[in-house]
Amino acid sequence: MKNKYIISIDLGGTNLRIALVDENLLIKDRFVLCTPVFSIKESLISAVVSSINKIISKNNLNKKDILGIGLGLPGPIDYKNGIVHYFPNIPGWKNVFLKDKLQAKLGIKTFVDNDANVMALAESRVGAARGMKHIVCLTLGTGVGGGLILNGELFRASTNATGELGHVPVNQTGPKCNCGGIACLEAYIGNKRIIQQAEKIFRKKITLEQLSALAGQGNRNAINIWKDAGNILGIALSGVINLLSPDCIVIGGGVANAGKVLFDQVKETILKRAMTVQAKHVRIYKAALGDDAGLIGAAILVREGVSE
Amino acid sequence: MKNKYIISIDLGGTNLRIALVDENLLIKDRFVLCTPVFSIKESLISAVVSSINKIISKNNLNKKDILGIGLGLPGPIDYKNGIVHYFPNIPGWKNVFLKDKLQAKLGIKTFVDNDANVMALAESRVGAARGMKHIVCLTLGTGVGGGLILNGELFRASTNATGELGHVPVNQTGPKCNCGGIACLEAYIGNKRIIQQAEKIFRKKITLEQLSALAGQGNRNAINIWKDAGNILGIALSGVINLLSPDCIVIGGGVANAGKVLFDQVKETILKRAMTVQAKHVRIYKAALGDDAGLIGAAILVREGVSE
Repeated sequence: MKNKYIISIDLGGTNLRIALVDENLLIKDRFVLCTPVFSIKESLISAVVSSINKIISKNNLNKKDILGIGLGLPGPIDYKNGIVHYFPNIPGWKNVFLKDKLQAKLGIKTFVDNDANVMALAESRVGAARGMKHIVCLTLGTGVGGGLILNGELFRASTNATGELGHVPVNQTGPKCNCGGIACLEAYIGNKRIIQQAEKIFRKKITLEQLSALAGQGNRNAINIWKDAGNILGIALSGVINLLSPDCIVIGGGVANAGKVLFDQVKETILKRAMTVQAKHVRIYKAALGDDAGLIGAAILVREGVSE
Repeated sequence: MKNKYIISIDLGGTNLRIALVDENLLIKDRFVLCTPVFSIKESLISAVVSSINKIISKNNLNKKDILGIGLGLPGPIDYKNGIVHYFPNIPGWKNVFLKDKLQAKLGIKTFVDNDANVMALAESRVGAARGMKHIVCLTLGTGVGGGLILNGELFRASTNATGELGHVPVNQTGPKCNCGGIACLEAYIGNKRIIQQAEKIFRKKITLEQLSALAGQGNRNAINIWKDAGNILGIALSGVINLLSPDCIVIGGGVANAGKVLFDQVKETILKRAMTVQAKHVRIYKAALGDDAGLIGAAILVREGVSE
């Protein structure tokens, strides 16, 4: 029998990434489009459809060679019914039955989920948390997102709105958060907030990469910014650890590249703030799959979805 | 075939409660002993064994009429291996194989679990959260404990140390907590802390019951103490809601008797602080089973344990 392939799509506010993935989760072909070009919902869906057709024909395959299509999407998703509720950073999407639309246009079984869930799936199956049963996955970016693997499965609850680690409050009062809440983790350690703080201290424009590099060179101000971020992250995670007692926490995204100074502080704060049994049990890992976590996770979504 | 019975035991720092429960979870007989009388571990175990023998013979039953023994215990428990790690409020217990000990002495299948887990089981199966799938259960007492029902089952993780809602931090800095942490929920709304605050304001000795009564009569100071407690509880729960998106939260224990003023504030804070989808979805209930939750939950522990 001929091998089957999966088509993975990782949609972000900046890039729309499409890949052909084989049954061993190896990426055989890929290309990237620029998301903001498709400002209208219908044009984005058309771009997805033509990209899928293109990657199939370019690789001399037929639709029957494709096990399914998996999409990791930047917003709240109803996995079961295949609905995009909305995208915080892409306008024009409201309760779109994307799974049905794509299946109707392409005739290939399709699965959609939130990007943080898809990343959690990837890190748990073939990444940093491989072999573990209870996993908290965290992405540090403009937003702070998360996915939960409990008893080896994605935990979606009844609402599909789980794992919102960025919106765990860390203080009774504090800065207003994008979600409408107050003093959420994201309001302290979202990319923009860290850069804002850094630019105030260094009195010039600075990127996250530069801030990480400065910390690596021993710059005290840069180190302190990362330590503060690590401490607040450690406090929020202490609550999560006392509640769920995960086997490990996987941290990915741009801010995670700050490296040792950030991770050491997160671990130190957890040992100080979380309960002894849970704090000693949990492992803190950096995400292993980098930028490809979304594509690999979307492929796993298909693989596990078709066998359900 | 003759009906089978279950023997339930609810151990607290003050009372040791024993009950004979039928297959419909009705309590047919019960009695209470005073826990501090049994200051030595062996004497407490002997009291449990003789109480069980006594309730069996008093009701003209034989050991073969007993489906099993269930114990809800006030501390961290390894359910699977039947080990009591320790009791925070009863000295002398350290990694005791209680399940094996009782099974050896009595020849009846035995199940042990943490009291908050047992209460969660009771409220989820026959109490306030009956019929719901994803449930957070909270007990407000000297300590603030909790149990999680996810996908209809108790969530125990790998450590058996889950649901520690009392130890979710609500501030970066704040009062030291009994657990060794800082600014945990329990450090703000544990019984003792609320009474401390109240006695400072009223400048006299006062009980929780009096404080609830005063609030019911419209006393401003009393109302404000309960509103403050409800607000802090609401903030901690907002984090839990954003993380797990439970179908409902069940609140029990002495502080829960403060009633409407406390519950209204909890709900108001959740609507303000938690994310919209999750906050609108979750229901906040008062525990329905009162003091019997522990005995009924221990019986359910047996019923579900023997059929596993």
